[in-house]
Amino acid sequence: MTNDTLLRALAREPTDYTPIWLMRQAGRYLPEYNATRARAGSFLALARSPAYATEVTLQPLERFALDAAILFSDILTVPDAMGLGLFFADGEGPRFERPLRDEAAIRSLAAPDPADRLRYVLDAVREIRKALAGRVPLIGFSGSPFTLACYMVQGAGSDDWRALKSMLYARPDLLHRILEVNARAVTDYLNAQIEAGAQAVMIFDTWGGQLSHAGYEEFSLAYSRRVIAGLVKQAAGRRVPSILYTKGGGAWLEAMAASGCDAVGLDWTVDGASARARVGSRVALQGNLDPAALFAPADRLRAEARRVLDAFGSAPGHVFNLGHGIAPQTPVESVAALVDEVRTYSRKLRAAIQTNA
Amino acid sequence: MTNDTLLRALAREPTDYTPIWLMRQAGRYLPEYNATRARAGSFLALARSPAYATEVTLQPLERFALDAAILFSDILTVPDAMGLGLFFADGEGPRFERPLRDEAAIRSLAAPDPADRLRYVLDAVREIRKALAGRVPLIGFSGSPFTLACYMVQGAGSDDWRALKSMLYARPDLLHRILEVNARAVTDYLNAQIEAGAQAVMIFDTWGGQLSHAGYEEFSLAYSRRVIAGLVKQAAGRRVPSILYTKGGGAWLEAMAASGCDAVGLDWTVDGASARARVGSRVALQGNLDPAALFAPADRLRAEARRVLDAFGSAPGHVFNLGHGIAPQTPVESVAALVDEVRTYSRKLRAAIQTNA
Repeated sequence: MTNDTLLRALAREPTDYTPIWLMRQAGRYLPEYNATRARAGSFLALARSPAYATEVTLQPLERFALDAAILFSDILTVPDAMGLGLFFADGEGPRFERPLRDEAAIRSLAAPDPADRLRYVLDAVREIRKALAGRVPLIGFSGSPFTLACYMVQGAGSDDWRALKSMLYARPDLLHRILEVNARAVTDYLNAQIEAGAQAVMIFDTWGGQLSHAGYEEFSLAYSRRVIAGLVKQAAGRRVPSILYTKGGGAWLEAMAASGCDAVGLDWTVDGASARARVGSRVALQGNLDPAALFAPADRLRAEARRVLDAFGSAPGHVFNLGHGIAPQTPVESVAALVDEVRTYSRKLRAAIQTNA
Repeated sequence: MTNDTLLRALAREPTDYTPIWLMRQAGRYLPEYNATRARAGSFLALARSPAYATEVTLQPLERFALDAAILFSDILTVPDAMGLGLFFADGEGPRFERPLRDEAAIRSLAAPDPADRLRYVLDAVREIRKALAGRVPLIGFSGSPFTLACYMVQGAGSDDWRALKSMLYARPDLLHRILEVNARAVTDYLNAQIEAGAQAVMIFDTWGGQLSHAGYEEFSLAYSRRVIAGLVKQAAGRRVPSILYTKGGGAWLEAMAASGCDAVGLDWTVDGASARARVGSRVALQGNLDPAALFAPADRLRAEARRVLDAFGSAPGHVFNLGHGIAPQTPVESVAALVDEVRTYSRKLRAAIQTNA
């Protein structure tokens, strides 16, 4: 691999600089992405075509010196493959035609065979790997069992996830049944991505932060842990690291770090220095610039990037990222400035350390 | 006062049981509230009429053995009094006709005289106190300087608060100017409520949790601290305690507890036992049942309430509440079961302690 900085940072090995990639880096802030999407006709058509998915996955790498590619896909491909009918209404988030509301539907839920109904994703992984030709590693991903369940029960995004929470409190047995199926499905799905060529995997627990302290352990972390335990750990002679991200999970970093993952993804509310103090050297940490900092003028954005780098310090095991996905309105030149600052400043930080040593 | 359990708990004095009140306890889950609102014609007409506000403030006390009344009002009365034009579109959250987008508008912003443009609120406080006739204490409240600024700049609620965050990163001087005016305005407003008869006050920092670690201190807590420092501490020979609530503020409990407030309000994601361990006996703690637990069958709801009570333990200084406002769809009988369980179980907990001592 030409640039394996990301994999070395995830393994907490020394690197010359802090690697950077951005959640949702292939996305609507890029004019070339919008052009491809227009050609594809819709987001789903884009995500379901290996050729288009490959095209947009590589677009940000052409513009910016990013240290990873991330598979272009949707976090809800798994429940869609279970037959829930994923769709996007105009200008809205994802929805399911057949959300899980009755016991019979939940009892008959089954983990899909990825080689069958999720083959388009695996084809995309293979095609992206070919197109990358070893430039940078490819990250595969899935929604967490809990986050998938949120949409599967609620049927759409929500402020309060009332349908989901009602099931959680009134019929926890049903929610556990969904989560068991999801854990198996996500494990199979991520392993299939690894087999197809993904060199690291990330579990997005976007909605785990909506749970209570006790609920997070019982309904989210327990199942992410099960997924992580079931992951293939090695491929092509190299460890395949896993990253666990919980938005709003700042209270639970120690538990996340003990889940078996190689790295914990942090949202922007968490202080890097205290996160590092809390988890020690057990895991790598990924994050955590506020995506809104990309709306600042370049000098302030660069200062914010340095603040994040300083907080994490120069010990091995930091991957720079945003604390959440990049906003569609983000100016492209801000991303260029950010990537440049992270590369330049983190290189200096590390050189200073080596000089002192 | 017939029942001053809340005030004693906020002062960390021993009480026979854990007092309970519920954020948004006068609200749409009550049929009698909906009837009054229908008579008033709109939410704003309801909130602006001292007679209606008094009527709905007292409604939950007629049904449930709650230990406090909270002024029925809106968190955005202050910016409305500044001339931003608060309105509610059908089925939507609050909006401002004239959000703060240009420097001139921000420079000319001024703290309103509460006796003038917020007189209807003060009249309501006086009328509610009269109607309560000393049954339970009356809590006054305001949005925090930062949370007011969120709506003032954004113009409405938001998922990502992009306009607000853009100002924060691009023109922090302008945001600081708004926050300074807000801090003065909120201080004056809460002091006027205290003068009119509020016996405790609460600052709702609903959106502080959207900030980064550094941003929370700089843009939210610094200004809430300023408000708390300026509050009248004593009225009618008794301390007027202040409660600071930040949704999503679990990472910053120590800082909130050091703000000068008497109590910290917790959302449902925080574990009561660790919160108590982190802040010690410096402040009382208020919270923090997940509002969605009210959708559970009674036995499970009661078990969840006991779990919250057990987590906080039986040391003085816990006020039971939800971690966020009660949902409009909440079954009324759930609220009755919750209030009963908190009263009964916390009384037992304390009696057990006294027997052991």
